[in-house]
Amino acid sequence: MSTPLNIHPNLNRNAAADGFAGGKLLCNCASDKVEVTVASQSFHNHACGCTKCWKPAGALFAQIAVAPRDKVTVTANGDKLAVVDPSATILRHACTVCGTHMYGRIEKPHAFNGLDFIHTELSEEAGWTPVSFAAFVSSIIESGTRPEDMEAVRATFVELDIPHYDCLSPALMDALSTYAAKTSGVLQ
Amino acid sequence: MSTPLNIHPNLNRNAAADGFAGGKLLCNCASDKVEVTVASQSFHNHACGCTKCWKPAGALFAQIAVAPRDKVTVTANGDKLAVVDPSATILRHACTVCGTHMYGRIEKPHAFNGLDFIHTELSEEAGWTPVSFAAFVSSIIESGTRPEDMEAVRATFVELDIPHYDCLSPALMDALSTYAAKTSGVLQ
Repeated sequence: MSTPLNIHPNLNRNAAADGFAGGKLLCNCASDKVEVTVASQSFHNHACGCTKCWKPAGALFAQIAVAPRDKVTVTANGDKLAVVDPSATILRHACTVCGTHMYGRIEKPHAFNGLDFIHTELSEEAGWTPVSFAAFVSSIIESGTRPEDMEAVRATFVELDIPHYDCLSPALMDALSTYAAKTSGVLQ
Repeated sequence: MSTPLNIHPNLNRNAAADGFAGGKLLCNCASDKVEVTVASQSFHNHACGCTKCWKPAGALFAQIAVAPRDKVTVTANGDKLAVVDPSATILRHACTVCGTHMYGRIEKPHAFNGLDFIHTELSEEAGWTPVSFAAFVSSIIESGTRPEDMEAVRATFVELDIPHYDCLSPALMDALSTYAAKTSGVLQ
């Protein structure tokens, strides 16, 4: 590529702060910001290349983590929120004015039901967990990245020492398969 | 695990033979064997942990490759073949007597339409391409592998120097995303 790759303008590589207990996520509106309070550290923070996760302008990847659903509360201007795609597994609640996704929630039976998806870059607090892997890397082709640029994208993650996958991480993929095995009765 | 892992009883690790041009696949019946003639080298041979690929008794993984559809021909006892699951993307044609999958074919629009899925271990010829990666590793949980055994499974692939993925390989995942991008019009 002729220009440097914009994996994400604000990829969090800092170590998580000991005892960090959360913060407030704010949408990108100039005023009347939607505020979501997360009373928990984040988990499984990662770069995501899927076509549905919200990405800052120009970024190839989203930066997304989870937190326990019961620790995620809309605390201001919630009337500006709406679900982006009611048919999606993850119901992404976005600000209808600036478009920022404030939290994603799963309401149906699913391995990840009980975990809300959040973008910790929307918080002014420092101490959130850093990005620990990249997921759905190949999917960025579906948002317009040229296939011939994928080698450079994957090389960038290698340089950053961030493991990269074309699906989720092994731990999360095992969690999905374990849930499927329990649902089918294969696993007790 | 207390017993050695049976990744596959006959994992092909031998280098492909120069100029190898294919061979005959035979089902496991004692007589009247179904015979499928493959007039081509195999491609993308891999270990597959998905729940749909045919696996020899006791194996954790299938061993499966592709060959151009127009090079794959049923040459004996084709009357014993039937499609395992007509609703699956890959129509797996199996011997109704011994259960062996002889070839899988995609009839609908798909990135891999035009490639048949074959198990080269069913051939007596040597020279086929070796296994070059493992796919859908986490999925073996859905066939009964205990989640706590997955670390040993992945360690085995590292020992064998076989890259392992919980989806397909990066090249094939990129091919799927490229097809999706062309279908949606994102990519010309």
